[in-house]
Amino acid sequence: MMTTLPVTANSDHELLAGASRRARELTEPLLRDAVERLGPSLAGIGAYHFRWHSRDPAATGKAIRPTLALLAAEAVGAAPSDALPAAAAVELVHNFSLIHDDLIDGDVLRRGQPAVWKEHGVSAAILLGDALHSEAFEILLGRGGPSGAAAAARLAAAMREVVVGQVEDIRFTERPWTGEQAVSVAEYQAMAEAKTGALLGFSTSAGALMAGADASTVECFDRLGRHLGLAFQCTDDVLGIWGDPAATGKPVLGDLREGKKTLPIIAALAADVPASARLVSLVGAETRTESDLRLAAELIEEAGGREFAEREAMRHLTGVTDCLVSLAMPAEIRASFEALAQSLIGRTR
Amino acid sequence: MMTTLPVTANSDHELLAGASRRARELTEPLLRDAVERLGPSLAGIGAYHFRWHSRDPAATGKAIRPTLALLAAEAVGAAPSDALPAAAAVELVHNFSLIHDDLIDGDVLRRGQPAVWKEHGVSAAILLGDALHSEAFEILLGRGGPSGAAAAARLAAAMREVVVGQVEDIRFTERPWTGEQAVSVAEYQAMAEAKTGALLGFSTSAGALMAGADASTVECFDRLGRHLGLAFQCTDDVLGIWGDPAATGKPVLGDLREGKKTLPIIAALAADVPASARLVSLVGAETRTESDLRLAAELIEEAGGREFAEREAMRHLTGVTDCLVSLAMPAEIRASFEALAQSLIGRTR
Repeated sequence: MMTTLPVTANSDHELLAGASRRARELTEPLLRDAVERLGPSLAGIGAYHFRWHSRDPAATGKAIRPTLALLAAEAVGAAPSDALPAAAAVELVHNFSLIHDDLIDGDVLRRGQPAVWKEHGVSAAILLGDALHSEAFEILLGRGGPSGAAAAARLAAAMREVVVGQVEDIRFTERPWTGEQAVSVAEYQAMAEAKTGALLGFSTSAGALMAGADASTVECFDRLGRHLGLAFQCTDDVLGIWGDPAATGKPVLGDLREGKKTLPIIAALAADVPASARLVSLVGAETRTESDLRLAAELIEEAGGREFAEREAMRHLTGVTDCLVSLAMPAEIRASFEALAQSLIGRTR
Repeated sequence: MMTTLPVTANSDHELLAGASRRARELTEPLLRDAVERLGPSLAGIGAYHFRWHSRDPAATGKAIRPTLALLAAEAVGAAPSDALPAAAAVELVHNFSLIHDDLIDGDVLRRGQPAVWKEHGVSAAILLGDALHSEAFEILLGRGGPSGAAAAARLAAAMREVVVGQVEDIRFTERPWTGEQAVSVAEYQAMAEAKTGALLGFSTSAGALMAGADASTVECFDRLGRHLGLAFQCTDDVLGIWGDPAATGKPVLGDLREGKKTLPIIAALAADVPASARLVSLVGAETRTESDLRLAAELIEEAGGREFAEREAMRHLTGVTDCLVSLAMPAEIRASFEALAQSLIGRTR
């Protein structure tokens, strides 16, 4: 007879994988209910987007946001299930954003299959996104208990912030690379906090809120989530230029190829050193060869743009740690948060 | 010296005009605040959509939904301002729907100027709509007082219903005109209630709810709003075929030209009389001449489709009256509701 060993996590990585798996398992029934309520046509398209018919467990995503919500509830001593409406709501709005963003950006692939707009049309993508947006509020207000309304108010404010950040990001593409109208480092950081940080801040703060945490703890969890989002974005910006295509799945020098205004290049141009001036003539050129792109990447490093972005990522990682230190929580939960933060940053190395 | 006469309404029409003007004046500051919060780029596009820079007072719309919310609050004995968050929220989501619908339907004009997607692009239309959607919840939850959360829950459910109705409406275009897969009268009515009735039901029920009405009164106001929406939709369907272009601003025989499946034609086909059979061959034809369209309109009348739609409009108008009779309210408020209902129906005559 075999001995059944208790399931224990033998590393932080396994801790995180367990928390993430649990979040997916707990949240999915609520997401499926929400999608079922949309009637047969839209429910089918929703199931397609969430890839519920896929046999590939990686296809359904890492559920970072639900994981954060449930961990925050546990951190303040509640059962993770207390934060389930927040976990489901944040996953719904995250997917609403993905569906609309793919359409806006013309991205044809999502989770290894054609994006909703590509497969089912523009109308379906707009309407499915809109429906998931409403249903996130329906879940918080219908199943969120006494703190559901406060969590819904936080979600509404966060989603406004996300949209404003997205609009800023689009507007940045229309602005010049240099001069008074150039995008400043401060403007970029404000955009990134809104576009990426606000929803991670909602995940952690709403998780704590639904678990009965006091106001200052809730705000601390909001900061934690925002720092996580910014650490992620800084790392993503570094990977967008220097990432290994084999690891990131994105083309080499991708962000330079697309002419994106990301943190390393904005910081390099703002440094105002000789390399900055040489960089200006490259990024402003009508056409750029492969060797131009490689030279641009070198000049960004020379002007300190890469180091700046990496330092910013570390600064936000420190911000996460500071929040964790200031909050009393079980060691295992703290380790899970740290593993999640490291998994977002560790991608650069 | 001139004598200032008290401003009194000398007819139901003036009563309604006064209620509508008041709703616009009370609601607009909240709408402006909401749009201002979206940052300079999006706020400018929002102001364009709402036509706040227009000198034409008719350009800003009739504010039917805010008017209904404020009247419902007054009907249950509260100050209209008690329902202001509901009035602003419903106007925000109504405009969110218009902005996304114009994009989905490819409609290039809205309130006599290019639609948002046409003037400012697809991304701007999607993101502005999304932002207004979030802000409707922000207003209800932030300024809605003790019943704000219950009103927000009603809004979330209503908006899901609206989207499901829109999807059904689109799916109807893909279904055959006859046979088992044809759209039934019952399916059409369910779609119309979801697409048009649910948000009018929110306007009236949330107005009553925020004014402190009890649950059964709130449900009665929901029915009232839904009947209004359906009376409006039936009338709109009749006007879409037989309306006078000079009065409706739409092309003559417009819905037949576009091959839309509206109530008169669905009812005419379902009647299964000789005219129905002749109608089938016309609507199924690849190309249709002007005389085909005129003949189709005659056959729909002959098969009883017009009469059916007009009777349905009257039935829903009676539903409105029944709701009003069952609710105790000041005579002036009742007269305003009746004038509003008549203004929606009266357009056919």
